[in-house]
Amino acid sequence: MRGLTEIRIGGFGGQGVILAAAVIGKAAALFQGGYATMTQSFGPEARGGSSSAQVILSTEPILYPYVTQPDVLVVMSQEAYTRFAPQLKPGGILITEQELVRVGQIVEGTRAYGVPATRLAEELGRKVVLNIVMVGFFAAVTGLLEPEALRKAVADSVPAAMQKLNLQAFDRGLEYGSKLIEKNGECEHGVALEAV
Amino acid sequence: MRGLTEIRIGGFGGQGVILAAAVIGKAAALFQGGYATMTQSFGPEARGGSSSAQVILSTEPILYPYVTQPDVLVVMSQEAYTRFAPQLKPGGILITEQELVRVGQIVEGTRAYGVPATRLAEELGRKVVLNIVMVGFFAAVTGLLEPEALRKAVADSVPAAMQKLNLQAFDRGLEYGSKLIEKNGECEHGVALEAV
Repeated sequence: MRGLTEIRIGGFGGQGVILAAAVIGKAAALFQGGYATMTQSFGPEARGGSSSAQVILSTEPILYPYVTQPDVLVVMSQEAYTRFAPQLKPGGILITEQELVRVGQIVEGTRAYGVPATRLAEELGRKVVLNIVMVGFFAAVTGLLEPEALRKAVADSVPAAMQKLNLQAFDRGLEYGSKLIEKNGECEHGVALEAV
Repeated sequence: MRGLTEIRIGGFGGQGVILAAAVIGKAAALFQGGYATMTQSFGPEARGGSSSAQVILSTEPILYPYVTQPDVLVVMSQEAYTRFAPQLKPGGILITEQELVRVGQIVEGTRAYGVPATRLAEELGRKVVLNIVMVGFFAAVTGLLEPEALRKAVADSVPAAMQKLNLQAFDRGLEYGSKLIEKNGECEHGVALEAV
């Protein structure tokens, strides 16, 4: 973890956006000695069925928990992409559910990664864990947090009966992301995420 | 709902602090046409097993989602009481789980209300719904949100199989609070919660 990192996660209701955000925040604070906040906004857009959360990871206590320009944007719906992509910080990381989001023209220097999280979750038997597949993929492509800290945060955030399935989902996303990174020869994890 | 209201909810992990906060935020935004944010902080205190959330309710979009001086403080552990009670706004409302929190000297003008939420939840068969008993009690003693909006938000926030139990918990807390208010002849709901 380095300096201050702002993350925005968006999708539609039922995809588990909030849980994914809480897992990332918890991993940073409980298992890596950092600080994190997670903010959820309820407003007119929520009435339309969309869901989003903001996570800030920091090595210091956080005074202002609002994300204005995310370093990392994770989107699981076209609507969330359209709404939040223009806010992504130059040099930021865009992570999409690739079968749900069609990526348009993106700013030069953005690193964009897609994962078929819903399909991978369905292969594990429960579509509902797509959010945790996304978290595993996030671990691999951002390199921001230790996969082991995120794994512990996943186990800590779901009911006992759902732990095994969620850990499988995490591992599946992590593996998919690691292979993608390997194939593309991308090794500068976190470089774009220096303290601001 | 009036102007801007800041709410802090604190307890220990496993009491469902975050769900209680989300229900209140959702009720305001989805069912009463307002705006709300819910912020959860992860830091050293979370490593000690305590949990807290901040909720802001507003008739306008919220620019700064951090609570500094809550209008309403809801505490379900002694530690949360000790930590947050000094921050309560003068004339604010203090709501406690009365069998878990011993209230010390409080600032003049504070309205303090206690409910044996854990015991009431146990009477319904599941201690785990104590958080929703607290939300029902909150509805009665603050008068900030329509009980019906909160009820819908409860139903909307828990798995289908848990809806009936959670709605019973909400009704139990609401009833307990309503009787308490009636007995004390307290009728100025919301008066201390005018826009700031």
